[in-house]
Amino acid sequence: MTPHPLILPLPGNESFARDLAAAGGGEVGAVESRRFPDGETYLRLMSPVAGRAVDLVATLAGPDPDFLRLAFAADAARAQGAARVRLIAPYLAYMRQDKAFHPGEAVTSDTFARLVSLLVDGLVTVDPHLHRRAALADLYTIPAAAVQAAPALADWIAAEVERPLLIGPDSESAQWVQAIAERIGAPWAVMEKTRRGDFDVSVELPDLTGRAGHTPVLVDDIASSGRTLIAAAELLAARGLARPVCAVVHALFAGDAYARLKAVVARVVSCDSVPHPSNAIRLAPLVAQAMAALPDRPRT
Amino acid sequence: MTPHPLILPLPGNESFARDLAAAGGGEVGAVESRRFPDGETYLRLMSPVAGRAVDLVATLAGPDPDFLRLAFAADAARAQGAARVRLIAPYLAYMRQDKAFHPGEAVTSDTFARLVSLLVDGLVTVDPHLHRRAALADLYTIPAAAVQAAPALADWIAAEVERPLLIGPDSESAQWVQAIAERIGAPWAVMEKTRRGDFDVSVELPDLTGRAGHTPVLVDDIASSGRTLIAAAELLAARGLARPVCAVVHALFAGDAYARLKAVVARVVSCDSVPHPSNAIRLAPLVAQAMAALPDRPRT
Repeated sequence: MTPHPLILPLPGNESFARDLAAAGGGEVGAVESRRFPDGETYLRLMSPVAGRAVDLVATLAGPDPDFLRLAFAADAARAQGAARVRLIAPYLAYMRQDKAFHPGEAVTSDTFARLVSLLVDGLVTVDPHLHRRAALADLYTIPAAAVQAAPALADWIAAEVERPLLIGPDSESAQWVQAIAERIGAPWAVMEKTRRGDFDVSVELPDLTGRAGHTPVLVDDIASSGRTLIAAAELLAARGLARPVCAVVHALFAGDAYARLKAVVARVVSCDSVPHPSNAIRLAPLVAQAMAALPDRPRT
Repeated sequence: MTPHPLILPLPGNESFARDLAAAGGGEVGAVESRRFPDGETYLRLMSPVAGRAVDLVATLAGPDPDFLRLAFAADAARAQGAARVRLIAPYLAYMRQDKAFHPGEAVTSDTFARLVSLLVDGLVTVDPHLHRRAALADLYTIPAAAVQAAPALADWIAAEVERPLLIGPDSESAQWVQAIAERIGAPWAVMEKTRRGDFDVSVELPDLTGRAGHTPVLVDDIASSGRTLIAAAELLAARGLARPVCAVVHALFAGDAYARLKAVVARVVSCDSVPHPSNAIRLAPLVAQAMAALPDRPRT
């Protein structure tokens, strides 16, 4: 294995790739890609990969249109003699539907993990949305590391927010919120969340008597429809608390969710796992560490 | 194996699926699919598949955004106990880049075929764009049948065009054009084509002296940018021949290609492998025959 991996960013991941290189993750190469008039993808690895340890960087927000491009890049690197090919996906897709809730439903988590495990030799991601599966290893058959963004989130909050009061979206998040809070010696609480549909969410706040002098910080792993955060902000206002800061890991923000959220909170910040105007917290140092520590796949 | 396969159309393929059933191909079931706000796909097979022979119908024009949906459907059918799962793709994608023309290029034909061969047990398509590979079996490791649209195209021309003169786009197409022409006893010729880019094509016509009383019929397997057909029509006009009829198998028609082509020819018709306003020639009877004849994959 070469000591200096070749980092190949898929289109849109160039900035994260440069950050990885700056954090000691390797040397940045280039991938060229375009679409033919018929919609098919053309792809060319612009850096020689023969004998190299290749790390493809491709965050997987809105994964469907770009999945084949990633498959072509991984397969091309292998066909051209890469010593190994890993996927660095700061945001990992298809972690939600991990069982059939109704007869006939596709368990997309399983299929997606199977395809990725066929295409690459290793995976590094950040805070995958694990529900019923305890670990990535329950889905992925390749060496896989889940970087925890909590320390980066906590350090940003400690540096930027005065007297923070951390609030998590639901009881499932309690352990995660507690870990962030304890790192910076801040109080914390979680809401009770009821989800009735993709865009229909209601929340309840615990008793926050005596916390009026604090700045509420709503923390969450994913902001997608933004409905949970918006409902929480409205509830805080109704209880007479200050406008909250929102600090999330993965800024997916579907449709007008970001604009609607910004209208009701003091500030929105996110980690840079998904490129977005709210990005304020760099993950590359933590991801580069995990890349260096990930064991190689046993050669079969 | 059940005698009556279950035909499951992916969204947009319902009409072709009904035609297959009418041609004796099996019984039509239903697939429900939508996108979550974050862009991920939800999919549910609405027909029980356990123990059934399942044929997924999914034409693959503009394949990138819909590939994962197809993978989820195929995997779900298998996980839910289908006796076998085949892909009926009236148009098959990624047949063009079957070698690396420049160092580093991804051979997308190979990767796409590998993925499809992993997901399904058999493949039926129509006139795949085979270049350097002689047969589907050189790419696909599953039983695969290539239906020939030529007889359907020939019969339509014989019924609808008076004194047709068949003209193929390039020397590679000579054998194909000759077969269509001989089926209906019509004269034929091929052009010389030079392609300089996706949208930059020039053509030369052979000597057509004495063919002025014929209706030129430009035939081609794929109409994508439409540049070849447009250039040919303009050349025919310059030589004083009649406005041609265009009869193509796969109507991809990127961007404004269809409108531009219609402006310079007498009529544009296509087979229904890709849903399009120009569709006039039904392929389901030929496809249903090939489905019935395709051998099962040896169980491993």
